[in-house]
Amino acid sequence: MVHGAPVYSSIPFGEYTHIDLSESKKVDGYIDFVSAVDIPDENQIGVIIPDQPLFADKTVRYIGDSIGFVVAETHDAAILAAKAVDIKYTEKTPYYSIDDSREATENFIHESNLACHHKVRKGDIHKGFEESDHIIEAQFVTPFQEHYYLEPQACIAIPNGPDKIKILGSIQCPFYIQKAIARVFDWPYENILVEQAPTGGAFGGKEDIPSEICARAAVAAMKIQRPIKVVYNRNDDVQLTSKRHPFQMHYKVGVKKDGTLISSEILLEENAGAYATLSTVVSYRSCAQAMGPYVIPNIHVDSNSYHTNLPTTGAFRGFGSPQAAFGHERMMDVIAEELGIEPMELRLKNILQPGDQTQTAQILNNSVGAEDTIREAAKLANWETYTPNNDGRYKYGLGMSAIHYGNCLGAAGWHMDGSGVNIKLFPNGNVHVAYGLIEMGQGSETVVRQMTAEALGVSIDRITVLPTNSAQVPDSGPAVASRNVVMTGNAIRNAAEKIQPILKKSAAELMGCKESNIDIKEDYVQDSDSGTKMMFHELCDYLSKSNMDMEFTGWWHTPELEYDAETGMGEAYFSYSFATQIAKVKVDSLTGQVDVQNIYAAYDVGKAINPSGIEGQVEGGSAQGIGWATTEDLKMQDGIVQTPNLTTYLLPTAMDSADVETAIVEKPEPEGPWGAKGIGEPSIIPTAGAVANAVSNAIGIQMNEIPLTPERVLNALNLRRLKQDIVSC
Amino acid sequence: MVHGAPVYSSIPFGEYTHIDLSESKKVDGYIDFVSAVDIPDENQIGVIIPDQPLFADKTVRYIGDSIGFVVAETHDAAILAAKAVDIKYTEKTPYYSIDDSREATENFIHESNLACHHKVRKGDIHKGFEESDHIIEAQFVTPFQEHYYLEPQACIAIPNGPDKIKILGSIQCPFYIQKAIARVFDWPYENILVEQAPTGGAFGGKEDIPSEICARAAVAAMKIQRPIKVVYNRNDDVQLTSKRHPFQMHYKVGVKKDGTLISSEILLEENAGAYATLSTVVSYRSCAQAMGPYVIPNIHVDSNSYHTNLPTTGAFRGFGSPQAAFGHERMMDVIAEELGIEPMELRLKNILQPGDQTQTAQILNNSVGAEDTIREAAKLANWETYTPNNDGRYKYGLGMSAIHYGNCLGAAGWHMDGSGVNIKLFPNGNVHVAYGLIEMGQGSETVVRQMTAEALGVSIDRITVLPTNSAQVPDSGPAVASRNVVMTGNAIRNAAEKIQPILKKSAAELMGCKESNIDIKEDYVQDSDSGTKMMFHELCDYLSKSNMDMEFTGWWHTPELEYDAETGMGEAYFSYSFATQIAKVKVDSLTGQVDVQNIYAAYDVGKAINPSGIEGQVEGGSAQGIGWATTEDLKMQDGIVQTPNLTTYLLPTAMDSADVETAIVEKPEPEGPWGAKGIGEPSIIPTAGAVANAVSNAIGIQMNEIPLTPERVLNALNLRRLKQDIVSC
Repeated sequence: MVHGAPVYSSIPFGEYTHIDLSESKKVDGYIDFVSAVDIPDENQIGVIIPDQPLFADKTVRYIGDSIGFVVAETHDAAILAAKAVDIKYTEKTPYYSIDDSREATENFIHESNLACHHKVRKGDIHKGFEESDHIIEAQFVTPFQEHYYLEPQACIAIPNGPDKIKILGSIQCPFYIQKAIARVFDWPYENILVEQAPTGGAFGGKEDIPSEICARAAVAAMKIQRPIKVVYNRNDDVQLTSKRHPFQMHYKVGVKKDGTLISSEILLEENAGAYATLSTVVSYRSCAQAMGPYVIPNIHVDSNSYHTNLPTTGAFRGFGSPQAAFGHERMMDVIAEELGIEPMELRLKNILQPGDQTQTAQILNNSVGAEDTIREAAKLANWETYTPNNDGRYKYGLGMSAIHYGNCLGAAGWHMDGSGVNIKLFPNGNVHVAYGLIEMGQGSETVVRQMTAEALGVSIDRITVLPTNSAQVPDSGPAVASRNVVMTGNAIRNAAEKIQPILKKSAAELMGCKESNIDIKEDYVQDSDSGTKMMFHELCDYLSKSNMDMEFTGWWHTPELEYDAETGMGEAYFSYSFATQIAKVKVDSLTGQVDVQNIYAAYDVGKAINPSGIEGQVEGGSAQGIGWATTEDLKMQDGIVQTPNLTTYLLPTAMDSADVETAIVEKPEPEGPWGAKGIGEPSIIPTAGAVANAVSNAIGIQMNEIPLTPERVLNALNLRRLKQDIVSC
Repeated sequence: MVHGAPVYSSIPFGEYTHIDLSESKKVDGYIDFVSAVDIPDENQIGVIIPDQPLFADKTVRYIGDSIGFVVAETHDAAILAAKAVDIKYTEKTPYYSIDDSREATENFIHESNLACHHKVRKGDIHKGFEESDHIIEAQFVTPFQEHYYLEPQACIAIPNGPDKIKILGSIQCPFYIQKAIARVFDWPYENILVEQAPTGGAFGGKEDIPSEICARAAVAAMKIQRPIKVVYNRNDDVQLTSKRHPFQMHYKVGVKKDGTLISSEILLEENAGAYATLSTVVSYRSCAQAMGPYVIPNIHVDSNSYHTNLPTTGAFRGFGSPQAAFGHERMMDVIAEELGIEPMELRLKNILQPGDQTQTAQILNNSVGAEDTIREAAKLANWETYTPNNDGRYKYGLGMSAIHYGNCLGAAGWHMDGSGVNIKLFPNGNVHVAYGLIEMGQGSETVVRQMTAEALGVSIDRITVLPTNSAQVPDSGPAVASRNVVMTGNAIRNAAEKIQPILKKSAAELMGCKESNIDIKEDYVQDSDSGTKMMFHELCDYLSKSNMDMEFTGWWHTPELEYDAETGMGEAYFSYSFATQIAKVKVDSLTGQVDVQNIYAAYDVGKAINPSGIEGQVEGGSAQGIGWATTEDLKMQDGIVQTPNLTTYLLPTAMDSADVETAIVEKPEPEGPWGAKGIGEPSIIPTAGAVANAVSNAIGIQMNEIPLTPERVLNALNLRRLKQDIVSC
C-alpha cells in the first residue's frame, strides 16, 4: 500500500503554466505524480453538469482546485512531496460574492457565471399583489456551513487486474463512486467494486466529494498498479471540499388584513462556488419549498446559483431547505409583526391542510400533519402563556418555525429514486440484510434491522445488516434526502412479500396445517387454528433441509411524479414530512451572546419506526442548526478559509446545544413503509428560523442574517440605540 | 501474512504420547504450534459421520493423520519447523487390506471396522437363480486413484474480528467449508465468508478435504489473529489427502440361454481408509448403480466400506460409479463369453428402455437414451465389422462399456440438492451472474454464461460470471455429482422467469406496444407486431432510468424422491445420464504394454448445452479413465504412498491418451434446463470397463483387475502359456 496526497491550486482563478517536480522528487519515498495527462478517458467529475475536470486542465477556479496527486511510500512523504510541487500560474481577477458574480460581464468562471436556475410560476402574482391589503418585503442572508464530519475524507483504492478496481472509503454514495470512476476509465460500472468503510458522519459532505477523491486515487492506483490510501488532513479537507450554499433571499409577500397569504415573489440567490456539483438539485429543492408549508394561490420563485472562486458548495443536510426555511419563517414573523398578528395564529391561518395545494399546485390528500406539529410544539413550549421578564440585561424570547420537506429525490431526481435489499435466511434462523443505502451514524442499520424483523415477524436479534457493498445490491441511488426509512423499508417489505409465501408453505407442510392459518410473529410460527407453535429457527432449519430458496431481493421506487420543470408546477415530491420547532433563547444584551436554551419540536414522520432514533435525529439536527444559526462562522479571505479547525470554527459543544423536547405526530403516508416518512434532514431545517425568530422576539429587532454571533447581535442593539438616540435628539 | 504447515502422524495406527517442540522453536521464524487443545468448540471434521477429529486427540489412524499445525513467518520455516516436531507414539497393529479389516475381531480402527453398509433388495434372487439357465460368477478388483489436480491443496485464512473469518482457497465446495469451520468454532455459518480462488482441477479431491485444511488454518489464524497461508507440497498432498476407493467385487448373475438377465447377487467391498469421510455416499451410489443400465427383475446388492490404516478414500469423479461400472461391464463380457453371445447383443437384449424399471424398481419414462448410446458408439467404432489381424506380436481388440449415472445428489443427499443464482442487470446491458457452484476447469462458467444469455435472450458477450463467494449466493450445496448444468441452469431459468415480465413491461412502455408482443432474443428487443427493434442495452438503460428492479435471485431444487433406504428400493436419483464407450486397444504380447488407441463414445446428455464442452469432458474423462485402467498404480507400503510424484505415479500424457470421438444423443429430460442432464462424471465412468473388455478381447483372457500394467498383462499371458504347456504335456 502506498499513500497519496492532493496537489492543488494556490490561486483562486487563473491558469497554471508550469509544474516543477524537482523538489518533490527529492523527498524520500516519492513514487509518482499523477495529473490530467494520466487520465485514461474522460477528465470529468461533474456529477450533474460536466463542468469539473478531475485534474485541472490548465484552468483553476478556486484555492484547492485539483491539479495533481502525489504518490509516496508513506503518508508523510506524500504530504511533503505534494507541498514541494512548484507551480507557476497566470492569475485572473476572482469573484467571491454573489453580487460580483451576477454583475460580471466578462471573465466568466465558466461559460457563464450562472450555475443554474429554477423557477416556480403559479397564479398571477401581480393580480395577487393588487388584491392584497399589505405588501411586505424583506431580505435574508444565510452563511456557509462546514460539515465537519468526524473523520476527514479518506479512501483506499486497490487495483484488481487491468480493468477493475476496488474502493473502500468513508462515503455516502457507493454508486456515485462507481459512476465517477467508470467515466474516467470508460469502464462499465460493474468493474468498480465499492465498499463503504464505517463512516462517522457525512451530512452530505460525503455525497459527491468522495467521487473526486476516489477517482483520483483510482487513476493513480491503476497507473502504478499498487493499492493507494488517501486521507485528507483537516485543513485540506475544509479548504478543498464542499460546504452549505450561502443564500441571499428577497421575499415580497402580499397579504390580506387577516393574514391570509395572497401573493409572493421570491428571489433566492446562491453562492455555488467554483463548480456546479449538486447546486442544481439544491436550488431545485429550495425553489420548490420556498414559501414553506403554507397555502398561497399566487407565487413566483426564482432560484439562481452563481459561480464564485470559492470552494464548491453542494449537499448539506437539508439540501437548500434550511436556507429557504430561514427565509419563509423569518418572513412569517416579519409579516406577523407588520400586521400585528400573533405569529402562531398567522401560521395556523395559512397552514397546509389535507386537500390543499402546495406552492407547486400539488394537492396533498394524505399525511399532512403540519397543523398538528404547530400545536404540539406550542404545547411543549407553553407558547400561549409564555411571558418573560425582559426588563434586565438578559432578554428572553420564543421563536417558531414550521416547515415541510419533500421526501426522497423528487421530480428532479426521480430517475434514480429506487433502492434495493437482499435478504438471506440461514438454517439457524439468522437473517442477513444487504442494502444499498448506508449507515453514517444516523442509525440506519438499526431501523433496517427493525424493519426486517417486523416484516418477517422475527426477533431483531436474528438480523445482521451487512456493510454496504456495490456488488451485493443493485444501484440504490444515493444515501441522501432522508431516503433510508422510506426506500429501504419499502424494499424490505417487497422482499418480505416474496419470502412470506415460502415460509408459510413450508410451515404448513411441517406443522401439517393450512397455509392460510400460519401466522409468523414475535419469532414464533403459529398455526392459528390449533395454536401449535414453533420457533422461527426451526422453520429455517426445515427450509434448508427441504431445499427451499433462502435468498431474496427486494426493490422499491418512488411513485411516478407529474411535474413541469418549465413552470415548476406539479408533484415536486411524492410525500412531505412536516415539522415545527420553537426555540427559547436568552440574549445577553451587554455582550450580544445568544444562548439557545430549549428547542421544542414536533415532527410528523407518518409513523415512528424508531422513536428514540427520531429524538436523536432532532437533537442532532437542532444542534447542527443552532451551530449554523449562532456560532459557526466560516470566514473566507481571498478565497482561503480562515477558520479551518475547531478552535476557530465553533461547532456547538454539548453546552452550546439546547435542551430538546420532541413530540411525534403520526399521519400515516400510504406509500411509506408502515406509513413512515423521512426524518434525517427535517431535523435541522426549522432550527435556524426558530432561533432567529426567538432572538428577534427577545430583543425586538428583526434579525435577518445569521450567524447570530455576539458581534452581529450587539451591532443590531447598538444600531437601534443609536437610532433611538437620534430620534430622541 | 504468516504460513502454516501440517504436522502429522508418522505411524499408521496407535497413540501419540508426547510432542516435543524444542527443535521446532529453534527454527528462525517459528511462531506457534496449534493442536487439539486450541480448538474452541468441537474437535470434529467428519462430513457425514462424526469420526474424524480436526486434530488427532491421542489416537492416530494413518500416516498423515493430523496432529498439529506449525505457524511460521515463511513457508519454508513452517515446513522446516513442522518436520522438527518430535512425536513419541505407542503403536498398534495396522490394517491395510479390505480382507484384514473385515476379518478383525478386536483392535478396531473405530468402534467397528465397517465404515458403512448399503443394500438393494429387489425380487427373489434365489427363485431367480433357479429360473436361470446359467449362473455365472466372477470377481473384480479396482485400485486407488489419486486426483493429481493441477495445484495442491491451498488456502488463505484471514481473521475478521473476534468471531468472523474469511477463507480464500482452491476449493470445490465453499459451503462445506462454512459448515466445517462453524462447527469447530460454534459460530453461525454466515460468520465464515468463503471465496473460491481460481481452481485448476479438483475431481472430488477438493470436495471435503479443503474443509480440514481451511478449518486448521482458521484455528491457527484466530489464535494468533493474523492471516495465514497454507500450501501443501505435492508429497504431503498425496500422502495426506483422499483417493478413489479401491473396490473388490463379487458378481453372481443368473441368465437365460438367450442372455436375458434374471437374477443377480452382488457384493461390493470398499477400502475406506482411516475415516468415513464421504464413503457412505460413494457406497450408496455404487450400490444403486451396481448392475448398470440393464433390466433385472431380481437383485441383491451389498456394498460395504471397511476402514484401514491408509489415507482416507472419498470423492473422486464418478463417486463409486467407475468401480461399479467396471464390475457390471466386465461381468457382461464374462457372461457374453460364457453364453457365446456377442457382447453388444447381450447388452441390447437387457438395456433399459423408456417405461422399464431400474435395479431399484424406479420406472424411467423419460430421457432414456441408453440403447441409442450403444448403437451410436458401435457405429463410430464400426463395431460390427471390426476384424483385427491378431496373428502377430500385437493383439488388437474392441471393448464396450455401457453405463447409467444418477444425476445430482439422489435420495441420500436430497436434503442439500438445491442451488441458487443471483443475476444483476446493469444500465449498459451487462449482466452479472453469481452462482453457488464453481468453476474448476470443467467449463462451468462457460455454460453458466451460455444459459444466462439464452434465458434472457441476450448476447453472451454481456454476461460476466462472478467468482463464487458464499456471501453472494445462498448455500447451493456442493459442486459435485455433475450438478452444475442441471442445478444452475434451472436456477437461471427460475431467475429469468422473474426478470422477463419486468423486461417485457418496460419494453412495452418504451416501445408503446403490448407486453405480449415483446420478444427478447439475440440481444434484440422486438415488438413482434410492428417489427420495431431496439438493442437489449437500450432496454436496460431505460430500466435503470425508470427505477426498475435490476437484481434477481433464482433457485431450484431437485424433485422429491421416494426411496426406502432399508431395501434400497425407489427413486435413487431423479434422472439418469446414459453413455457407452468403446475402447480400441493394441496389446504388445511381448511386453504386456497396453495402448488404448481409440475411444468411441456416445452420450445421452438430454440436451447438449455446449457440444464442445461435452467433447472436452469426454476427452478428459477418458484420459483419466485410461490412466486408472492402465498406467496409474498408486503403490502403498506400510501405509506410505510409494509413488507420490509424476515420475512414479504415471498420469497418462497426451501420448498415452486415446483419440476420442464422441456422438451426442439428446433425449430431453423434462426436469433438466432445456432438457439437459449432467456430463462431468459420466465421462470417466465407462472407460476402464471398455479398456479392460478390449484388452480381454484382444488377448482372449478375462482381465478382471486393473490397472492393466505391462506386468499384469504379461503375467496373464505367461500364466495362460504355462497352463497350455501343462495341458499339452
